[in-house]
Amino acid sequence: MTGYRFSLRSDQTAGYEHPPAVRDAIKLSGGSAFGPTMPDVVQAAMTAAGEYRTEVMQYGPLMGLPDLREALAAFERKDGVDCTADNILVTSGAKQAIELICRTFLDEGDLMVVSAPTYVTAIPIFVGAGARFMNIGQDADGMNVPELAEKLAALHRDGMRMPKLIYDIPDHHNPAGLVLSLERRHQMLELARTYNIVIIEDQTYRHIRFEGEALPSIRSLDDGTHVLPVNTLSKLLAPGMRLGWTVAPTALLPRLANFKAEGGTSPFLQRVAVEVLRHGGVEEHLSLVIPELGRHRDAMLAALAKELPEAHVTVPKGGFFLWVSFDGVDADDVYGAGLRHGVVTYPGSICFASEPDRSHLRLSYSQASPEQIEEGIRRLAAAYRDVAFSNRKHVVA
Amino acid sequence: MTGYRFSLRSDQTAGYEHPPAVRDAIKLSGGSAFGPTMPDVVQAAMTAAGEYRTEVMQYGPLMGLPDLREALAAFERKDGVDCTADNILVTSGAKQAIELICRTFLDEGDLMVVSAPTYVTAIPIFVGAGARFMNIGQDADGMNVPELAEKLAALHRDGMRMPKLIYDIPDHHNPAGLVLSLERRHQMLELARTYNIVIIEDQTYRHIRFEGEALPSIRSLDDGTHVLPVNTLSKLLAPGMRLGWTVAPTALLPRLANFKAEGGTSPFLQRVAVEVLRHGGVEEHLSLVIPELGRHRDAMLAALAKELPEAHVTVPKGGFFLWVSFDGVDADDVYGAGLRHGVVTYPGSICFASEPDRSHLRLSYSQASPEQIEEGIRRLAAAYRDVAFSNRKHVVA
Repeated sequence: MTGYRFSLRSDQTAGYEHPPAVRDAIKLSGGSAFGPTMPDVVQAAMTAAGEYRTEVMQYGPLMGLPDLREALAAFERKDGVDCTADNILVTSGAKQAIELICRTFLDEGDLMVVSAPTYVTAIPIFVGAGARFMNIGQDADGMNVPELAEKLAALHRDGMRMPKLIYDIPDHHNPAGLVLSLERRHQMLELARTYNIVIIEDQTYRHIRFEGEALPSIRSLDDGTHVLPVNTLSKLLAPGMRLGWTVAPTALLPRLANFKAEGGTSPFLQRVAVEVLRHGGVEEHLSLVIPELGRHRDAMLAALAKELPEAHVTVPKGGFFLWVSFDGVDADDVYGAGLRHGVVTYPGSICFASEPDRSHLRLSYSQASPEQIEEGIRRLAAAYRDVAFSNRKHVVA
Repeated sequence: MTGYRFSLRSDQTAGYEHPPAVRDAIKLSGGSAFGPTMPDVVQAAMTAAGEYRTEVMQYGPLMGLPDLREALAAFERKDGVDCTADNILVTSGAKQAIELICRTFLDEGDLMVVSAPTYVTAIPIFVGAGARFMNIGQDADGMNVPELAEKLAALHRDGMRMPKLIYDIPDHHNPAGLVLSLERRHQMLELARTYNIVIIEDQTYRHIRFEGEALPSIRSLDDGTHVLPVNTLSKLLAPGMRLGWTVAPTALLPRLANFKAEGGTSPFLQRVAVEVLRHGGVEEHLSLVIPELGRHRDAMLAALAKELPEAHVTVPKGGFFLWVSFDGVDADDVYGAGLRHGVVTYPGSICFASEPDRSHLRLSYSQASPEQIEEGIRRLAAAYRDVAFSNRKHVVA
């Protein structure tokens, strides 16, 4: 499996050369965008390169362009967060925001709480910042916060070092597709306050919602002292923009930004984003992409019900992923067989920070069309049957 | 001084709010570009956003766009480096390339060789990767490689752990303005081979040359096993592009790229760069900016000779900086007095990885016009006299 680990780390298929046989495989793997709904930013790019030439060709302010910080603060206020531009740190994608927070708060060997499973690409970032893991299970209400409460109480009782960070994706969890219940949001925040732990609230999929009402973000329930949300334009607009952000106390921003080794996020990309935001480009994009992705999800659910009824599936109310579980069949083997049948998925085992569980697959419906999804699931079902057949216990007469 | 340290870290003035009195100060500080020679990339941006929409709005290949890797490999081959696109890793600026190399090769507490002084912004990157420093002095021929040879031999004789990395800027050194002699390039490479040390050759200013012949890069003298060059479009085109690269054995690229936490360098910026490179934009830009910067350097040298003859100045044959030294006057104090007089410089002391020397200033001539430079040096001379007067030993009768 280690050969694949590298390419998976960055949601990018090109980092790993797949074997020739699966070059034309259907990709149900990374969280990439759907080609036909890519936004048109030609006008914004012309304005940025033309009218703002001396700004966008120069080094930019370390915290981000003031106009973009204003626009993102307005976006956050609409989502119930009391903040101003002075609270926004622009980053090169949400992953960089996660890295800056981890490198700021963690020392080598510090404990960090993650769900099991968690966001695969973030795991090496956590490890690179020195984290050890406290893995917490999930149920239909998201991370099992009562379990977390018990574990934290036990550590505290024993005088052990407490975790510094909790990382979760409360809305449309990647990979599990779950939404953390309102009661658990309050409980998690209470635990963070009790034990002085910082919550990294990954809001990447928060606004990609097909049905149901939005729950308040954990950050919006907080006074701004225990929750650092991270967000990105990758899903709100386009991954190629590589623009993310966090909302933090102003005094914390320099400490976070101190780890920005890329010399600041490109002011050119930031100005393009400002132009898009000013002209309602995000709302317009979401109005197209959310129903589109909803159709992709439905196509995948229908195909699984028809072709692979053996799979247990969590039905997500938003986000990009289906979390599929098998009884008594090794999902890593199904992943490998899938490659041979021409369909690329993620083995669920790599989504565990420690103690990998080999009974799941993560399927993405974000990049493939409904037709490709149907064909992909047919191929996956064939791969599953190959593995299930091979795994059968043969009765020796 | 600590208050300033943060803003200096990233060549960005906006990271630190200067006191109101110096808001309109003349900036002889960071390595920013000169406004009037900023390139026009409108056509390239339109082509990227329009014709390459689905490429530039999506996640990009982790190693970089194939077309950009091809173009950069061609650039390197022209500079005497035997390489192909498979040896190029595109990074978010040269600083990210430095970070990826340091995090790949260094463990906590590992020794690293740097010149004293060295590139100020890279110091926290070295520290963040766990480096301890072996500081090597400089003379007119650049880093004192014979001194390095003695120190390495002594370590080796005593059975101590040897350094893992040597970092230097052999061409138009930042901040010292020196060029490493050809003999020392060969010596440094020989030391790297003898003790199995990797040289990070920072080529940021290599092609910004006003006079004299280019020396071969250390990388071009090597067979590709002991030298990792880092380079950037920041000085060849524009800092706002935030595009850098390194040239490495293909098998090493995944290890380096593993630390790219920004989710890959933006394919949008990369496509804009490809378009600019294809249409000769770098050569065109250099043909404008090199003579322009040469005039800036001459204006600064002339102003210093006239206004501040007490300063010892190294005359650089290229690059962005003058390294100014004072006898018996604290340069950190001159820096502080300069702020009050309306001129921003860098105290040279922050350019030392350890054991700061407070007798130097780094002056940049890249961003200010010749007229601003003349006025800035007048202000600096006034600041110097303030400090020299205050520092005089008073004879108590």
